Amino acid sequence: MSDKKKMVEEITSREDDFARWYTDIVKKAELADYSSVRGCMIIRPYGYAIWENIQRILDGMFKACGHENISLPMFIPESLLQKEKDHVEGFAPEVAWVTHGGSEKLTERMCVRPTSEVLFCEHYKNIIHSYRDLPKLYNQWCSVVRWEKTTRPFLRTTEFQWQEGHTMHETPKDAQEETLRMLNVYADFAEKHLAIPVLKGLKTDKEKFAGAQQTYTIEAMMHDGKALQSGTSHYFGDGFAKAFDITFQGRDNTQKHPHQTSWGLSTRIIGAVIMTHGDDNGLVLPPDVAPIQIVIIPVAQHKEGVLEAAGALREKLSANYRVKIDDSDNSAGWKYAEYEMKGVPLRLELGPRDIEAGQCVIVRRDNREKYFVPLAELEQRLPEILAEYQQAIYDKAAANRAERTFAATTMDETIKLADEQNCFIKTMWCGALECEELFKEKAGVTSRCMPLEQEKVGDICPACGKPGKKMVVWGKAY
Amino acid sequence: MSDKKKMVEEITSREDDFARWYTDIVKKAELADYSSVRGCMIIRPYGYAIWENIQRILDGMFKACGHENISLPMFIPESLLQKEKDHVEGFAPEVAWVTHGGSEKLTERMCVRPTSEVLFCEHYKNIIHSYRDLPKLYNQWCSVVRWEKTTRPFLRTTEFQWQEGHTMHETPKDAQEETLRMLNVYADFAEKHLAIPVLKGLKTDKEKFAGAQQTYTIEAMMHDGKALQSGTSHYFGDGFAKAFDITFQGRDNTQKHPHQTSWGLSTRIIGAVIMTHGDDNGLVLPPDVAPIQIVIIPVAQHKEGVLEAAGALREKLSANYRVKIDDSDNSAGWKYAEYEMKGVPLRLELGPRDIEAGQCVIVRRDNREKYFVPLAELEQRLPEILAEYQQAIYDKAAANRAERTFAATTMDETIKLADEQNCFIKTMWCGALECEELFKEKAGVTSRCMPLEQEKVGDICPACGKPGKKMVVWGKAY
Repeated sequence: MSDKKKMVEEITSREDDFARWYTDIVKKAELADYSSVRGCMIIRPYGYAIWENIQRILDGMFKACGHENISLPMFIPESLLQKEKDHVEGFAPEVAWVTHGGSEKLTERMCVRPTSEVLFCEHYKNIIHSYRDLPKLYNQWCSVVRWEKTTRPFLRTTEFQWQEGHTMHETPKDAQEETLRMLNVYADFAEKHLAIPVLKGLKTDKEKFAGAQQTYTIEAMMHDGKALQSGTSHYFGDGFAKAFDITFQGRDNTQKHPHQTSWGLSTRIIGAVIMTHGDDNGLVLPPDVAPIQIVIIPVAQHKEGVLEAAGALREKLSANYRVKIDDSDNSAGWKYAEYEMKGVPLRLELGPRDIEAGQCVIVRRDNREKYFVPLAELEQRLPEILAEYQQAIYDKAAANRAERTFAATTMDETIKLADEQNCFIKTMWCGALECEELFKEKAGVTSRCMPLEQEKVGDICPACGKPGKKMVVWGKAY
Repeated sequence: MSDKKKMVEEITSREDDFARWYTDIVKKAELADYSSVRGCMIIRPYGYAIWENIQRILDGMFKACGHENISLPMFIPESLLQKEKDHVEGFAPEVAWVTHGGSEKLTERMCVRPTSEVLFCEHYKNIIHSYRDLPKLYNQWCSVVRWEKTTRPFLRTTEFQWQEGHTMHETPKDAQEETLRMLNVYADFAEKHLAIPVLKGLKTDKEKFAGAQQTYTIEAMMHDGKALQSGTSHYFGDGFAKAFDITFQGRDNTQKHPHQTSWGLSTRIIGAVIMTHGDDNGLVLPPDVAPIQIVIIPVAQHKEGVLEAAGALREKLSANYRVKIDDSDNSAGWKYAEYEMKGVPLRLELGPRDIEAGQCVIVRRDNREKYFVPLAELEQRLPEILAEYQQAIYDKAAANRAERTFAATTMDETIKLADEQNCFIKTMWCGALECEELFKEKAGVTSRCMPLEQEKVGDICPACGKPGKKMVVWGKAY
């Protein structure tokens, strides 16, 4: 107990060292642990429960648009990976290769999937014959492997959990609509369920997915002003379909290639939750994904009737909320610190005097605001308080982003802004790769996206002085 | 459409060729497909939806006993796998080895997990320090890889989906109770949710899990009389804990080793569902895991009001059931065959005359029994009809098993029974490995288990004539 108390006190402050603060939270809120397997992490029960809530909500959103889940092999034979040339160039350098099965050397080595486009294409070739077979709207929940040199829990690990949607459509228009539909699903999920404001936009060619015609992204700003790419949605056109010779008989009886999308969101989003909402006392969790939404702390629990009343309350609230009661013999102070570290949205205190007065005390995690709520009104008040909490953490994140978002029209301005703090910098851009690289070289920023909601920030590309065609948001990124 | 109709007709009869019948169903009910990845299968949406229902139910049962889900790496460094000697001997010959990451050769090769005991042990060593940290009740949903020479969809594939529970306890008694608790969870799940009667029993030393002290199993009998091991629960004692040097401070302040269990159930169980309940018209699914529980077929759907009435019915029933309406322009005959192939428990027909009479027709998948149900009584009758259906398919499976279960007191009797048909044969057994091997050699049967409910079948071991210590059930197995 005293050990644990000490651990809570030991957390690094966000302002002192954001990276260490992050690692402290991951460890002390018991989200993840290291393993002896190079670059891989263990997602502990509390972290995994967050992922299960994310999965449940997202899976429901996917199914509501007609997507079905399937399971494909985790291995990709080398010859299959090589079928689409941009794709293999992008991924081959970072895959894990299986060369032996038991004691037998394989005639063809296989990689562990870094993503599953080629496996889906192989399957689609078998099952798509006619326009009546379209669209195919498939999704897979699984883990993938990309050989990373430097890793950080949730943000970048060699193996990570994710979902990958892969769809095939009759026309380019259908596929493009799907690409944007799923981008919007991700944005809605981030904003409405995780209380994380996101920028929706298009990636530049340099930053797009290997093999895609277009990559859309949702970009979130972390508390330290860095960007986190939080979900991507790709339009492939018929590039893979041609490489894999996937055809269908069209309505006009001619053979055509279908048009394809893929989209993915990973456990990285848990890193976004930590770094968007967390504070020096630990995690701050959005209610929809919090493993515990309300923790009941009985006060003076040795007194008659307290534990019974707390237990009855838990019973009642459990119908609608994920509720935990902590009736351990740890001190109240220890319990407060523990559930603040764990980011539990609401703490409900109930003691003898409360019971006598027919009320309880609710304390919000984000700002420690106290509410004295008559027990008779509790079930009406809880959704309101949770909604206020959710709005408050969203607003705080949006305010941080607003304070750290700037517009620049020259390279000097851009450099100055980027030097002063991590931030989003809006500029026009001519579209040339060399100019994009100049931003990196001179200001240390990369293009996060070309937002769907374009603004006009002057007329010229600060890198070359030529006319700016698109507004880009630049920043430093995880 | 005509193609599909033809496919339905083409299914092999169970009595002609059970193995081909099985493969036909897997393909024609669109449960799974082959891939170019050696020994791996694609679980298609309809098959995966069954697995999702299995996962949801089992996961709820696990959580009700206090288990938490976690996620461990998919790789195991070779030195880690080698820490427990029986375990590595059992698994090393059948693992896939990763030797390269990108273009770099690994200093130590890693296998893809065939099971995760060693990974759990490594983690447990880090997080178990005191008796207060016990029990640890963890579970993982994932896929594992075992290099198989001959494979069949669901029954035996190189990669397969499963759950693996791994728990640590303070005392041997706690761990042994957990082992049996989870065996009972599996048996209840099989019997109550899948309508598959199972034998609960202990494996012989020859058949137990590599590294376990005891392996318990649930054994089901398929329609063809062969056995399918459908779930196993292992007691490890402190063997792994000692190999991994996992200790905790006990209540008496001395350092002790915790006692361990593991238990697993895989997509193999879908094979059990197919081969227990299926018939010559296709799948027959237990309602709890059927992706579609009720299919509504509008009759004379071009007539006014039919589609509206069918749609309204679907809307109403969807609150409590997984309902599909098929208003395609395929013929009624095609639709009947299609949903019989897919094993949908109930077909609900609704035509103009039914609407006029205020009724509908319900047809059971298992026996085509028809029920004329007044629409006003539908919501009361449906649970009753589904319960009758569930009981009927369970009884049919139990009757098949009863008809094919025999007792023998001599080796000649055993050989004769095994020659006549696939069946369960009960005999006494002296406990010697040589005698167990003699059953295989002479009668071609292996020990399925020593049932928890022992009977006395004569006095002697038919193989050696010495006193029989345990009753064993023998059979041919998948």
